Amino acid sequence: MTNGRIPSGIYGLDRLIEGGFRDKTANVVVGSSGTGKTTFAIQFIMHGIENGEQGLYISLEESPSQIMEEAALMGFDMEKHYEENLFFIHLKGQNFKKMIEEQLPALVKARSDYLIKTRVVVDPLTPVIWATPDQLEQRELIGKLFYTVKELGVVLATVEEHAKPGETIGEDVLIPVYLSDGVIHLEYYPVGGAFNRTLQIIKMRGTKHGEGVYPYIFVRGAGIVVRSAPTEVEEVKPGDYSEVFDRAIKTAQSMNAPEHVIEKIKKIRDNWQYPYSPEEVLEILFDSFKLKR
Amino acid sequence: MTNGRIPSGIYGLDRLIEGGFRDKTANVVVGSSGTGKTTFAIQFIMHGIENGEQGLYISLEESPSQIMEEAALMGFDMEKHYEENLFFIHLKGQNFKKMIEEQLPALVKARSDYLIKTRVVVDPLTPVIWATPDQLEQRELIGKLFYTVKELGVVLATVEEHAKPGETIGEDVLIPVYLSDGVIHLEYYPVGGAFNRTLQIIKMRGTKHGEGVYPYIFVRGAGIVVRSAPTEVEEVKPGDYSEVFDRAIKTAQSMNAPEHVIEKIKKIRDNWQYPYSPEEVLEILFDSFKLKR
Amino acid sequence: MTNGRIPSGIYGLDRLIEGGFRDKTANVVVGSSGTGKTTFAIQFIMHGIENGEQGLYISLEESPSQIMEEAALMGFDMEKHYEENLFFIHLKGQNFKKMIEEQLPALVKARSDYLIKTRVVVDPLTPVIWATPDQLEQRELIGKLFYTVKELGVVLATVEEHAKPGETIGEDVLIPVYLSDGVIHLEYYPVGGAFNRTLQIIKMRGTKHGEGVYPYIFVRGAGIVVRSAPTEVEEVKPGDYSEVFDRAIKTAQSMNAPEHVIEKIKKIRDNWQYPYSPEEVLEILFDSFKLKR
Amino acid sequence: MTNGRIPSGIYGLDRLIEGGFRDKTANVVVGSSGTGKTTFAIQFIMHGIENGEQGLYISLEESPSQIMEEAALMGFDMEKHYEENLFFIHLKGQNFKKMIEEQLPALVKARSDYLIKTRVVVDPLTPVIWATPDQLEQRELIGKLFYTVKELGVVLATVEEHAKPGETIGEDVLIPVYLSDGVIHLEYYPVGGAFNRTLQIIKMRGTKHGEGVYPYIFVRGAGIVVRSAPTEVEEVKPGDYSEVFDRAIKTAQSMNAPEHVIEKIKKIRDNWQYPYSPEEVLEILFDSFKLKR
Amino acid sequence: MTNGRIPSGIYGLDRLIEGGFRDKTANVVVGSSGTGKTTFAIQFIMHGIENGEQGLYISLEESPSQIMEEAALMGFDMEKHYEENLFFIHLKGQNFKKMIEEQLPALVKARSDYLIKTRVVVDPLTPVIWATPDQLEQRELIGKLFYTVKELGVVLATVEEHAKPGETIGEDVLIPVYLSDGVIHLEYYPVGGAFNRTLQIIKMRGTKHGEGVYPYIFVRGAGIVVRSAPTEVEEVKPGDYSEVFDRAIKTAQSMNAPEHVIEKIKKIRDNWQYPYSPEEVLEILFDSFKLKR
Amino acid sequence: MTNGRIPSGIYGLDRLIEGGFRDKTANVVVGSSGTGKTTFAIQFIMHGIENGEQGLYISLEESPSQIMEEAALMGFDMEKHYEENLFFIHLKGQNFKKMIEEQLPALVKARSDYLIKTRVVVDPLTPVIWATPDQLEQRELIGKLFYTVKELGVVLATVEEHAKPGETIGEDVLIPVYLSDGVIHLEYYPVGGAFNRTLQIIKMRGTKHGEGVYPYIFVRGAGIVVRSAPTEVEEVKPGDYSEVFDRAIKTAQSMNAPEHVIEKIKKIRDNWQYPYSPEEVLEILFDSFKLKR
Repeated sequence: MTNGRIPSGIYGLDRLIEGGFRDKTANVVVGSSGTGKTTFAIQFIMHGIENGEQGLYISLEESPSQIMEEAALMGFDMEKHYEENLFFIHLKGQNFKKMIEEQLPALVKARSDYLIKTRVVVDPLTPVIWATPDQLEQRELIGKLFYTVKELGVVLATVEEHAKPGETIGEDVLIPVYLSDGVIHLEYYPVGGAFNRTLQIIKMRGTKHGEGVYPYIFVRGAGIVVRSAPTEVEEVKPGDYSEVFDRAIKTAQSMNAPEHVIEKIKKIRDNWQYPYSPEEVLEILFDSFKLKR
Repeated sequence: MTNGRIPSGIYGLDRLIEGGFRDKTANVVVGSSGTGKTTFAIQFIMHGIENGEQGLYISLEESPSQIMEEAALMGFDMEKHYEENLFFIHLKGQNFKKMIEEQLPALVKARSDYLIKTRVVVDPLTPVIWATPDQLEQRELIGKLFYTVKELGVVLATVEEHAKPGETIGEDVLIPVYLSDGVIHLEYYPVGGAFNRTLQIIKMRGTKHGEGVYPYIFVRGAGIVVRSAPTEVEEVKPGDYSEVFDRAIKTAQSMNAPEHVIEKIKKIRDNWQYPYSPEEVLEILFDSFKLKR
Repeated sequence: MTNGRIPSGIYGLDRLIEGGFRDKTANVVVGSSGTGKTTFAIQFIMHGIENGEQGLYISLEESPSQIMEEAALMGFDMEKHYEENLFFIHLKGQNFKKMIEEQLPALVKARSDYLIKTRVVVDPLTPVIWATPDQLEQRELIGKLFYTVKELGVVLATVEEHAKPGETIGEDVLIPVYLSDGVIHLEYYPVGGAFNRTLQIIKMRGTKHGEGVYPYIFVRGAGIVVRSAPTEVEEVKPGDYSEVFDRAIKTAQSMNAPEHVIEKIKKIRDNWQYPYSPEEVLEILFDSFKLKR
Repeated sequence: MTNGRIPSGIYGLDRLIEGGFRDKTANVVVGSSGTGKTTFAIQFIMHGIENGEQGLYISLEESPSQIMEEAALMGFDMEKHYEENLFFIHLKGQNFKKMIEEQLPALVKARSDYLIKTRVVVDPLTPVIWATPDQLEQRELIGKLFYTVKELGVVLATVEEHAKPGETIGEDVLIPVYLSDGVIHLEYYPVGGAFNRTLQIIKMRGTKHGEGVYPYIFVRGAGIVVRSAPTEVEEVKPGDYSEVFDRAIKTAQSMNAPEHVIEKIKKIRDNWQYPYSPEEVLEILFDSFKLKR
Repeated sequence: MTNGRIPSGIYGLDRLIEGGFRDKTANVVVGSSGTGKTTFAIQFIMHGIENGEQGLYISLEESPSQIMEEAALMGFDMEKHYEENLFFIHLKGQNFKKMIEEQLPALVKARSDYLIKTRVVVDPLTPVIWATPDQLEQRELIGKLFYTVKELGVVLATVEEHAKPGETIGEDVLIPVYLSDGVIHLEYYPVGGAFNRTLQIIKMRGTKHGEGVYPYIFVRGAGIVVRSAPTEVEEVKPGDYSEVFDRAIKTAQSMNAPEHVIEKIKKIRDNWQYPYSPEEVLEILFDSFKLKR
Repeated sequence: MTNGRIPSGIYGLDRLIEGGFRDKTANVVVGSSGTGKTTFAIQFIMHGIENGEQGLYISLEESPSQIMEEAALMGFDMEKHYEENLFFIHLKGQNFKKMIEEQLPALVKARSDYLIKTRVVVDPLTPVIWATPDQLEQRELIGKLFYTVKELGVVLATVEEHAKPGETIGEDVLIPVYLSDGVIHLEYYPVGGAFNRTLQIIKMRGTKHGEGVYPYIFVRGAGIVVRSAPTEVEEVKPGDYSEVFDRAIKTAQSMNAPEHVIEKIKKIRDNWQYPYSPEEVLEILFDSFKLKR
């Protein structure tokens, strides 16, 4: 079933989308400020790199060093891969139209000769949308951008959204939603409680996808973890979970898990400050790396 | 009662619209991203082709190969009929106004000499709407488009919608809704549960149509199946339903069902991963092909 | 009380508006797609023709043949009266401003010499509204149109509406509502059940009118039937009601009902596929034709 | 307390506004289609005329004959006073700006020499509002109009409103509401029942006014009757109330009520078709004419 | 704590704002039609005058005589102080931009030489807002106006508002709210009952202010009285409360209250027509004038 | 965990954002009128100054003296540091575009040579937003402003908001929210009660932040105090809490708290007029200054 599917790297997501994204598709992550769109994008691209793929990060707002610094705060070491198999295009302040219509196609043409798999991130796509209120022009610009970078591999674009009350998805992001092959919607209601961050799959062409509302959490060192069922996590006082982690590490080693997986578990252990046991998160992780306990 | 009615090919829909669409009418399928509008369109046109009709697919967004690839993922083999009795017009990036006013009429004139029945799909109509915010111009463009292609046979156009909370149908799709002979509304609320995809018939000229809210599901290999009553499907763990399918295949053979119907049932069998028995879907299918058990 | 009132032809409506419309008034039927505005208009004009009046159908969208074909599907034989006492003006694609300001007055002047009563339909008025977003210009155009055709007799204009949630009537139809003498609002919520089509009388100058929400149904062969009280119709499985119809026909004949009334009852009989008895509808019909049982 | 107050003529209203309107004030009646704004205006001006005052009816939409015809249908004989002490200015299709700035002041100057009390109606003010979307220009035009006609006496202007759900008063009528001395809001929800027409007093400068929601009804022959408390009227089948009326007429005669009051009661008697006793309405009437039983 | 605070003159308000307004601040009273903004302004300015201050009333809509007439109806004798220590600037129809930028600064400069305390009213500020929809221009005009008149003393400006349902304060008054030092919001829901007029303090720079919803009433002869707690006033039939008033007058005299306070109580007595005892209002009054019983 | 974090100075906030703001980030405080945005900004900058840092206050509305006067009313002595280590740039009435693009970078360049830590306040950012409705231009202006001043240290900008009902954050402040590294949302509902002022953290890049709704209060002499849990404060009558304060002062002294902390407690004592004990506030204070009792 997962033939040709490309794992997203977002823990717990792939089992909702038949194993991953389809190759050469453009997927959009939509969410308001603070939902973790950039974390999603970094995690997606780093997953590829850790598995021998290349990554192209088209940044339209922050500089590569800012992005790498934020990645580090979340536990991702982008620096190590910088200019090796992780490349940046920083388009701040440029003329999008010209860039998208002339420069980008040339760049992509040059890269596409290599046979190595490439993941592309456009983060955020928002400035292209804001470049013009004219829907037709937006459609042409974004259509061309998607068309061009899909040549390289799976594309993930992030979009800032401002949904009005009651809307499923913001009216302001209609064009990228319409032009993409897949749409993932992140929501964040800062009102406390265990379910204030949720993920929905709005569309995923050619894919039988999960149709629920899935809670997700941020785990420093791992990234976004999507839980497939909204069952309550027992909230207890933070305790010492090193034993749980050590057991998990030993199990992983006994299954010959690759080194970077072991390191990821160690990082999570060192950063774990949540008031509940990491059991469920570790289980989703093992599942993601196809380690069967 | 079904005199002159053209079966839609959407399983379970025809019994809600007196047997099918009226010939030479323009029908619009309206829905937001992820509701399955393209699946609807592909299923409609393939049903005609499987029954000896011709199909004309006017695509305003994706290329024929992309459409055919997605069709394949859903279990429709469009390639087999490509350029035989399935024809494409791909209008990406063209000047709609000129195309609709000059080229299309010429094209249609050329085709309409043949006496063979033709189904026309316009998927999606959205770029024509977005081409101008001026309602009067929209009306002229879409009016002319419908007028032209209705000459060939039944027309099905898909429209992306962004309904605001509480609206029956999006304000942005008012013009095609107004100008069409029939309007089918698809809705998708990604909140889990068995009834998060529903279909309503907004209008159907000259037809006494169903006036309810009908749940529908996607069945890989079959397409959209509309259920006529919102009774709960018992959700159980996926089981082995091969026996149910084999019995259905035998029954169909004993009734001398055409080969493509048998193949469809086999395809559904191979793709069945739903947590409930396929009995109801098979029943709607038999009903659609007028096989009485 | 019904002095000078002109029966609407809509079964069950006249008893809500003191017997019918006032002569030389402009009345507007407002409703969203699929509410049956054109059915309302056809039924109104045919009622006059069947009673020896003339009808002028000003069509701004469909051709006379399309309208007559749809009328036939609903059980109205317009063809028989075509160019005899039923006349069409088809204004598709014309310059409304010029037409309304110059041609129409001349046409009306020519007709108004005849002494025969005339009903005028403008179906739909919508293109005139959409011709300009400028409220002042709309007001002048529609004001002049109403002023001109009211000279001939009762006018009925249909208007497509897109009401936003909670509005009594759509903001987009404010001008024709304001300029007319009477406004009838049709609503359709496709959610199943017996009361998903309702009629309200928004205003009716110089008339003490019903102020409720009245359900209505479509009866093929008869048209729209307005029920004066929202009492539940018992929904049962469709049965054989030929006996009920035959009794009604005999009763009508015994009361010397005109031939076209007898034929209407027969047509309803041949098309009756509703899951309940036609008793109530027949009663409203008898009442409309002033046949007292 | 009623020193200098001018009775409105609307039965039941004056006791809510300290006896009537203040002289030389501009008062606005706001309501959507079908609320009875014109009835309100006619009743107001006729009350003055029946008591020896003059009336000036500035009509911006219908002709004097149309207005008088509708008045007759409601039981007001305007014709009798036409050009005697009831005068019309019909401004249909004129240039409001020029009229308001030049002609009207001259006209008013000419009239204001007479010492007789004059009531002024502007019905409807709506075309002045629609003449321009520019709030500043609206303000100048309406400000000047009010300023000019207030010189003659009490002014009553009607305004068509389209309130959005939840608004107390429509945003589109903000300017006349702001510029007037008093605002009366009429609402009509055509949903059946006894309280679907209500009146509220939004503002009344220098007046301690009722602050409730008051139901009102139309009584053919009398006009609008405002009920001061929303107590349920017992709905019974229409009966024969001639005895109640005859007793009322005798009582009025014994109190030396003027002839036109007696006639009004007779007219109401002849038109009474409501399913409840006229007791309450007669009481409000006696109260309005200051007849104490 | 009340050092330098300037009593508002609105009975019951000062105890909610640490004793009064701060000197040389601009305060805005926002409310829809009929909330009593002008009453608020008149009461504020008259309070200063009765205590030996000067008042400058900048009127942008009505003439000084209209304002004084309305003040009289509410029980305020402005005439007595006219041109003595109460001055008017009437800006009707003038060019606001020029006035605010050139004339007003000159005027204020001339006045500010006098050492006497001055209260400034701008009533209503609305025309300045409506003079332009451009927020930047509004900001400059109103900013300059506030800046100029704050030189004289406390400023109180009234603003007409049209809040949409659910908004705390209207979007149309955002600029004056933003530019002022204090904002008081008046609301009026004409639905009957004891709490249909309420006051809220939206902001008050440098002041610890009440954060509740406070009901207020109009008392002819006194003006606005703000109640600090929403406890129910027992509604009884109007009675004879002269004894209560006489006792209050005697108490005031025994405390050597100034003559104008005694007169105010007498005026209230003569106008009292409310269906409950004036005890609470008298208590708030005594409190305002710092008379301890 | 707090490595490199810069304490906000807002009592109770830092424990919600991993110890403080990250250096060289732009943080936005969003709130409607009266939420205390300026208090927030003053408290933030004064905290740095009291700890030996420099402060740059970029004021776009009020003059330095107005800001310092208001600060004094809240208990902050800005005057003492004026032009010593607290500097002002007052941009009232200037051309923002030119200032932001040319002058500010030069100014910042000049300052950034010094090695001393600097906090930057932009209060309010609102005029930059209102300078143009064009989102793209807003984005460039604000992006450049943030980019420039982030060079100096942590930036805190305040933004006036007008959220529509149901929105998490106002649509009008989308651009600064999008461009900033952190967003804190203040809300104020003037409806009385203990929880009518609340704070939420909308986003905080690279930070695991609190995701609840946190009530906050103003304490004259201290400023804003954020409570981490919405537990009810027992409301009692104001009492004499000097003993509580004296005990707190002694404890602080015994822990060798710096002099300015002792002074702060004394100021709070002198201004305490709340109807409940200062225990909780003192605890948050001690916690903020890292004094462990």
